Amino acid sequence: MSTRQTQSVLGILGGGQLARMLAIAAAPLGVKTLVVDSAADACAGQVAPLRLADWTDFAALEKFAAEVDVVTFDFENVPADTAHWLAERVAVFPNPRALAVAQDRLAEKTLFRECGLQTPAFEAVDTREDLERALAKVGVPSILKTRRLGYDGKGQFRIKQRSDADAAWETLGANAHGLILEAFVPFERELSVLAVRTRHGDFRVWPLTQNWHTDGVLSMSLAPAPEVGALQARAAALARTLAEQLDYVGVFALELFVKDGELLGNEMAPRVHNSGHWTIEGAITSQFENHVRAVLGLPLGDTSARGCSAMFNWIGELPDATPVLNSVDGHWHDYGKQSRPGRKVGHANVCAQDAKTLAARVAEIARALQRQDQAAPALQVL
Amino acid sequence: MSTRQTQSVLGILGGGQLARMLAIAAAPLGVKTLVVDSAADACAGQVAPLRLADWTDFAALEKFAAEVDVVTFDFENVPADTAHWLAERVAVFPNPRALAVAQDRLAEKTLFRECGLQTPAFEAVDTREDLERALAKVGVPSILKTRRLGYDGKGQFRIKQRSDADAAWETLGANAHGLILEAFVPFERELSVLAVRTRHGDFRVWPLTQNWHTDGVLSMSLAPAPEVGALQARAAALARTLAEQLDYVGVFALELFVKDGELLGNEMAPRVHNSGHWTIEGAITSQFENHVRAVLGLPLGDTSARGCSAMFNWIGELPDATPVLNSVDGHWHDYGKQSRPGRKVGHANVCAQDAKTLAARVAEIARALQRQDQAAPALQVL
Ligand SMILES: Nc1ncnc2c1ncn2[C@@H]1O[C@H](COP(=O)(O)OP(=O)(O)OP(=O)(O)O)[C@@H](O)[C@H]1O
Ligand SMILES: Nc1ncnc2c1ncn2[C@@H]1O[C@H](COP(=O)(O)OP(=O)(O)OP(=O)(O)O)[C@@H](O)[C@H]1O
Repeated sequence: MSTRQTQSVLGILGGGQLARMLAIAAAPLGVKTLVVDSAADACAGQVAPLRLADWTDFAALEKFAAEVDVVTFDFENVPADTAHWLAERVAVFPNPRALAVAQDRLAEKTLFRECGLQTPAFEAVDTREDLERALAKVGVPSILKTRRLGYDGKGQFRIKQRSDADAAWETLGANAHGLILEAFVPFERELSVLAVRTRHGDFRVWPLTQNWHTDGVLSMSLAPAPEVGALQARAAALARTLAEQLDYVGVFALELFVKDGELLGNEMAPRVHNSGHWTIEGAITSQFENHVRAVLGLPLGDTSARGCSAMFNWIGELPDATPVLNSVDGHWHDYGKQSRPGRKVGHANVCAQDAKTLAARVAEIARALQRQDQAAPALQVL
Repeated sequence: MSTRQTQSVLGILGGGQLARMLAIAAAPLGVKTLVVDSAADACAGQVAPLRLADWTDFAALEKFAAEVDVVTFDFENVPADTAHWLAERVAVFPNPRALAVAQDRLAEKTLFRECGLQTPAFEAVDTREDLERALAKVGVPSILKTRRLGYDGKGQFRIKQRSDADAAWETLGANAHGLILEAFVPFERELSVLAVRTRHGDFRVWPLTQNWHTDGVLSMSLAPAPEVGALQARAAALARTLAEQLDYVGVFALELFVKDGELLGNEMAPRVHNSGHWTIEGAITSQFENHVRAVLGLPLGDTSARGCSAMFNWIGELPDATPVLNSVDGHWHDYGKQSRPGRKVGHANVCAQDAKTLAARVAEIARALQRQDQAAPALQVL
C-alpha cells in the first residue's frame, strides 16, 4: 500500500448490496474491486466492474481468479466446490471450510456446542420417520428448517402441534440437502455479534446489536444493544473461539437468542451482515472496511460505536427518503435495486450521542413515514 | 427518490479524486454517477463509468448530456463555453456564471469587495507598463498571478523588490488571459469556509478549517479551526452573501487570510475542496454528500463536526498506510492514482473527541512516517 505501482484487487462472488458496500469501503483503501454475478443488473455493478458468470462457469472464474489478489463473498451460498476450486488458484477468505460449516445449519450448531455456545435443542431429519423421532425428542413448538440455502426465513416451517408434522413434511420433505428440527425458543431478545479476524489472528468485535425480525426478515437493529452487561464479553469470547476453530478471516456475524438471560446460538453468517449495517456511520470503522482490511492483510480499525445507532431495514420498496435526509445524523443507504416484494432494497442509519436523542429521531422518522410498527419494539427499549 | 423505477444520474466533468469521492458519496443516495475525462486512467473511473472526451468534443458531450440528470464539476477550469453549451441542454450546477467568476481572480476579488469581504490590494495587469503602475500602487512584496487556470500555486511569481519586475514579466507576461498583481499578505493564519447552497436557497456552512500550505499546495488542515470566535459567523455571513449573489448551487470553498484578526478573501473554489476532505469522517455530513444532495435538489445534511479532525495531504506519492490504519479513528484515502511529483495522490483524516487526543494521534503518525515537518504547524495550535 505504500509507493505502489499497482493496486490490490478484491474479487467478490456475488454482486448484491453487500458487495456494493464492500466496494465503496474498499476504494479509499486504494483497493479495486471486481465483482462476479450472473445478473447484468447486479447492484454492485454500479460502483465496480462486473463480470457476468454463474458459479459453475469455470472458464469465467479462471479469468476472474487471475485478475484478483483475494476472493471473498457477498453471497454465502456459493457452492463449496466453487470455493474449493478457487482456493487452489487464489487466496479465498473466509476459507472454504468455514464457508461450508456456515452453509449447513447442522454443522454450524454442532460447532457452536463444541465451542461452548448452547443452542436450541435440534435433531437432523432426513426421512419422515426421522421427523417423528425428532419431534419426540425436541417437542413442540418447533421449527423444521432446510439445512442449506435458507435465508430471510425461507425454507422454514413452524410446527405448533404434532399434527402439523404432515404439512411440514409436505412442504420441506423433498429437500435434497436434508432438514433440521429445532426447538422453538420463546426468547427474550435477539442479539448479534459482529466480529472480524485477520490473516494474522488479530480479532475484534463491535458492540452487540439488538435485532427485530418481521416475517423472518430483519426489520430494525439497535446498537450498542442496551443493558447487555456480561453478555458482551461472553459473546466476544464465543465469537473468538469459533473464529479460531475455523481459522476464519474476515467479518462474520453470530446470531444469538437471549433466553433466561443466557445466550443461545441461532446461526453464523460467514460474511458482512445486515445487522452490522449500522456500523457505516455508527462505528469508528465499519464492518465493510474491516472486512476489506482483514482479507487483504491490513491492520484492523477500531470497532467502537460513535454514540448509539438504529437501523431501519427497507424491504420490498424504498419509502420517501426525505424524513431520513432531514434527520440530524440520519443516513440513507439506497442499494440501487428495483423494487420487488421481500427484497432488501436499502436501509437507513440514524445516529445520536445518547439513547434519548436517538429515540426522538427514530420516532420522528417513523411518524413521518407511518412506520410506527417497524420502530415500536426498538423504541420500547431505548 | 421514493418508489422509483429509475435512478438519478449525476454527470461530472473531470474524473479526478473529487469526482471519485463524489461518486462514492452519491451511491448510498441511490444516485448513479457518469464521469467525463480525457484520460482513460482517470481515478474516478474505478468507481463510476467513465466517458472519454475532452471539453470541446461536443458530439461526446451531447451524448453525455442526454444520459445525465444534472451536471457538476470536478475540475473548475472547464471552458466557460462548454459550461454554457451544456447548460442549454441539462441542469448545470454551479451555474456557468458562478463558474466564470470563480475562474477569474480579478472578477472573484471584485465580487468579494462588493460583498463586503476585504481582499489584499490588487491591480489588473495586461502590459509591462500596467505592471509598473500596479507595483507603484500595490507595493512590494507582492505576487503576480495569472488571472486564470492557476492551481496549487502554479502561475505565480513572488516579487520581493521592484527589480524583480523584469523576471516576473519574463515568466508570466506572455499569459493570454491577463494577470493580477496582489499585495503579499503577512497573514497570521489561513482559514477556509466550506459552504453549500441548494436549488431552493437553503444554505449551510461547516466549521471553519485552518490550513497550511507548502510550496503553494495544501499540506495540513485542522477543523474546527481553533479559537476563531466571531470569525465563524462573519465567514458564514460572507459565504452566504456570495452564494446568493451568484445564485450558487452546490458546495464551494472560500479561502481566507486572517490579518490583524480580520478576514481577507484570497479565492473561491467553485466545487468541493481539498480543505474540506476532513468532513468525510469528521462531520456528520461530508462536503461530497451535501454537494450531491444540493445539486439534485435533496435536503441538506447536518454540517456539524464530530469532535475535531486533522487532514494530512499526500503529495507526489503515498507514505506507508500502516500508522494511519493503526491510529484509533484514523482514516486512509487513497485516490488510486499513479505517483507523480506534485500530484495529490491521497489524504488521511485523523479524528478525536478532543484536541489533546487529536494532537497525540497526529504526533504519533507524524513520528512513524517521519513527517514531523508536515504536522508541526498544526500541532502548534492544537
Ligand atoms: N429456533 C427458533 N426459535 C425461535 N425463533 C426462531 C428460531 N429460529 C429462527 N427463529 C426466528 O426466525 C428468524 C430467522 O431465522 P433464521 O436466522 O434461522 O433464518 P434465515 O433464513 O437464515 O435468516 P437470515 O437470512 O436473517 O439469517 C430468527 O432471527 C428468529 O427471529
Ligand atoms: N496575496 C498573498 N499573500 C500571501 N500569501 C499568498 C497570497 N496569495 C497566495 N498566497 C499563498 O499561496 C497559496 C496558494 O495561493 P492561491 O490560493 O492563490 O493559489 P492557487 O494556485 O489557486 O491554489 P489552490 O489550488 O490551493 O487554491 C495560498 O494559500 C497562500 O498560502
